[in-house]
Amino acid sequence: MGNVVRVGLLGCGTVGEAFAELLVERLAAVEDVTGIPLALTRIAVRDPGKPRSAGIAAELFTGDPYDVVKAEDIDIVVELIGGVTPARELILTALEAGKPVVTANKELVAAAGPELYAAADRGGVDFFFEAAAVAAVPILRPIRESLAGEEITRVAGIVNGTTNYILTRMMGENLAFDEVLAAAQELGYAEPDPTADVTGADAASKLAILSSLAFNQSVAADDVPREGIVDLDRVDFELAAQFGYVIKLLAVADRFPAEDGGPGQVGVQVFPALVERDHPLATVRGSFNAVFVNTDAAGELMFYGRGAGPRPSASSILGDVIAAADHLQRGTHRKVPVGAPAAIRPTEDLAYSFYIRTEVVEAPGVLSEVTGVFGRHGVSIQQVDQDGSESQARVVFVTFPATERALNGALDELRLLGHVRSIGRVLRIYK
Amino acid sequence: MGNVVRVGLLGCGTVGEAFAELLVERLAAVEDVTGIPLALTRIAVRDPGKPRSAGIAAELFTGDPYDVVKAEDIDIVVELIGGVTPARELILTALEAGKPVVTANKELVAAAGPELYAAADRGGVDFFFEAAAVAAVPILRPIRESLAGEEITRVAGIVNGTTNYILTRMMGENLAFDEVLAAAQELGYAEPDPTADVTGADAASKLAILSSLAFNQSVAADDVPREGIVDLDRVDFELAAQFGYVIKLLAVADRFPAEDGGPGQVGVQVFPALVERDHPLATVRGSFNAVFVNTDAAGELMFYGRGAGPRPSASSILGDVIAAADHLQRGTHRKVPVGAPAAIRPTEDLAYSFYIRTEVVEAPGVLSEVTGVFGRHGVSIQQVDQDGSESQARVVFVTFPATERALNGALDELRLLGHVRSIGRVLRIYK
Ligand SMILES: NC(=O)c1ccc[n+]([C@@H]2O[C@H](COP(=O)([O-])OP(=O)(O)OC[C@H]3O[C@@H](n4cnc5c(N)ncnc54)[C@H](OP(=O)(O)O)[C@@H]3O)[C@@H](O)[C@H]2O)c1
Ligand SMILES: NC(=O)c1ccc[n+]([C@@H]2O[C@H](COP(=O)([O-])OP(=O)(O)OC[C@H]3O[C@@H](n4cnc5c(N)ncnc54)[C@H](OP(=O)(O)O)[C@@H]3O)[C@@H](O)[C@H]2O)c1
Repeated sequence: MGNVVRVGLLGCGTVGEAFAELLVERLAAVEDVTGIPLALTRIAVRDPGKPRSAGIAAELFTGDPYDVVKAEDIDIVVELIGGVTPARELILTALEAGKPVVTANKELVAAAGPELYAAADRGGVDFFFEAAAVAAVPILRPIRESLAGEEITRVAGIVNGTTNYILTRMMGENLAFDEVLAAAQELGYAEPDPTADVTGADAASKLAILSSLAFNQSVAADDVPREGIVDLDRVDFELAAQFGYVIKLLAVADRFPAEDGGPGQVGVQVFPALVERDHPLATVRGSFNAVFVNTDAAGELMFYGRGAGPRPSASSILGDVIAAADHLQRGTHRKVPVGAPAAIRPTEDLAYSFYIRTEVVEAPGVLSEVTGVFGRHGVSIQQVDQDGSESQARVVFVTFPATERALNGALDELRLLGHVRSIGRVLRIYK
Repeated sequence: MGNVVRVGLLGCGTVGEAFAELLVERLAAVEDVTGIPLALTRIAVRDPGKPRSAGIAAELFTGDPYDVVKAEDIDIVVELIGGVTPARELILTALEAGKPVVTANKELVAAAGPELYAAADRGGVDFFFEAAAVAAVPILRPIRESLAGEEITRVAGIVNGTTNYILTRMMGENLAFDEVLAAAQELGYAEPDPTADVTGADAASKLAILSSLAFNQSVAADDVPREGIVDLDRVDFELAAQFGYVIKLLAVADRFPAEDGGPGQVGVQVFPALVERDHPLATVRGSFNAVFVNTDAAGELMFYGRGAGPRPSASSILGDVIAAADHLQRGTHRKVPVGAPAAIRPTEDLAYSFYIRTEVVEAPGVLSEVTGVFGRHGVSIQQVDQDGSESQARVVFVTFPATERALNGALDELRLLGHVRSIGRVLRIYK
């Protein structure tokens, strides 16, 4: 049918190699089904001398990435180097040269999205980044296209495979964080440096991307307050189980439209939370991810699949490349529908139910004193669970929804009470 | 930006009215986000004199549907009459006149899809039908676009809200089918005539549509063998629970490529099945639906949401209308990538684990006799559960995967054994 669409690749590491192999495997099938003939024309790497996969022709490699983004014989650029420098420069150069770009670079998109969207639109070409959100899970395209007429009110879910793997094992086998992390690193489920995963930074980048497209307002990774899973205690997993919950690292974005229908505020947050055992998110195990999208008319939608891994990511990238190639052949593109920067609602104003584990000195009237403090700060207690036969008891409180501001006020006052020995852990409850 | 895209609607019943209201509500927001100005220009109904929703201008109504599909001042046609006649004729007329068509008509698409796809392509316009598959759940667009480079091997899930609502209540409250159906009808969760739902016919239509797009081969509703939920017994729900399962009505399509890489065969089937309690499909409750898509590179994906309901369906239809309008303005369209009719693998050749409930007369050696019969037919028994203190026992067998052909051979022989009083129920187990 059309002319061959020539793909140039930047980076041939974990994901780049898997993509190059998948593309070569699928050239014939893609042409068969879509009528689009693709070709892999050049691959830029840091070290072109390094041995590469046997499935990729050696003469494709170059050490100069500008020989891809500026080349006459490249129609589409796929960026899989990662990080901000030099990826940002390279992508901008390609877009300005009128070449559509596909990337899996969540760090870059979450930091500099609007600059890249604008460059793509100026170049009259597509900028696609499905694999930067939840790797294999098609979610950005459904949000951009299928839900283009919708009012999306919430995007929330499990968007990091490494931490979900760790939490699933901590929960199921009653293991400590350090033990599971070490095992995960040995099995390749966690990177040698797991910081971005376990601190919630990776999830924050993905949430920034998801919420920007869902709400058509720009949210950057730096806008997203995050709590990681490093300091979670085994006892909280036990108590969660006892109360019918599991613990999951969640990324949650809510839109709070203004009274006058204006953009209003956006609440974005990454945190470990208690999730009811029979909530669909509770059955998302191991390295799987899942994202709920709540909309006005469609109601609740969920998208589930592998949120990491080279071949699953390559699948997503290939879908984007085919869409970009199709648009290129028709001389069209679709603008990324992200508008002005969102006004971020302060975390303290976001309301949740809370789980609060405390150590209290047993004495008559202590419970009523403590619940009195909560009440004065507008925090209603839904459940109290006391455990301890001696003079000291572990008391867990579960609250009705309250803002973090109200809760912190109560906790500050509780810390001054002589009978409250310590406030061990506070976790949000996700419903 | 572009010219106004004028939408003509066929049918203003349950779904049509919800769509008309949603479209009118969202005109401004859609133009704002996508740059596409839509207008609702005309609505054909059977009885234009009937009172309609206050949100829809009375002068839009006409009694002549050809005044929509042939009209100069209509750019896109939305068909929400339902059924084959006159919907088929009307859609063909619109497509031939170069008007893109959006429909929610699963019956028609599952019966006459290829004829409609060909007409759309001849007319150079889009034919979209996302709402015909799983109503609100974006699944056809992800399959067509995001997974365009994938090898999809299986599509399977819960695609009928009415039966899932009934089964959820039968399972949770130990009620009989008739009781729950009556309650569901009272609440509007089941139609006055629930035949299409409870016999699996509706699910078969949806599976035909899903598998056609997933495998790029045409599967019609008539190709899909189906078992409904009408004759499910309370005792099987109890036993399922005891063994750690729930019962769900599933629609399952598998691709069996030929050795030489050719299209091979497609296995399609709708049946009530045992699903392990912690399988993600087991947590799909009430009127929610969910579909798993298994692919070579992405692995397992799941799409979850409302599979019925006027407003959720309207959401999907609006997404399709926006996509069609966008393409229309750019003078482009996307061909439905469905090829020649699939070769359907006979049900007897599909392999599952089976649950088999029998009544057996207690006597020494009976169990070994029965398992011997299974064994001779190549059916291995994984689990036997015997319950009954007197001379007659209820024995449940759970098999390892075996074809239905092998199983039927074994059951036919078992029926001849004097000690086997009856074979009460056979259900597939879905893993
Ligand atoms: N891993 C996953 O599961 C996953 C999932 C979704 C998205 N992603 C994203 O995918 C991207 C790539 O990740 P990765 O794990 O594949 O990274 P990686 O294994 O570190 O590979 C990076 C590649 O880029 C090349 N490279 C580095 N600097 C270069 C330069 N200046 N010019 C040209 N090439 C250069 C490297 O060349 P050499 O081979 O010569 O060293 C290597 O081939 C990242 O944005 C990541 O966030 C990853
Ligand atoms: N209900 C759901 O949840 C759901 C979900 C997904 C898909 N769908 C599909 O959506 C479609 C519509 O379903 P529905 O429940 O909305 O049907 P419905 O309530 O029966 O409405 C049918 C509409 O078509 C009009 N109509 C009938 N014959 C006509 C003719 N010859 N010319 C012009 N108009 C005619 C009727 O006019 P009057 O108003 O004058 O009688 C009515 O407005 C079906 O294909 C269904 O399968 C339904």
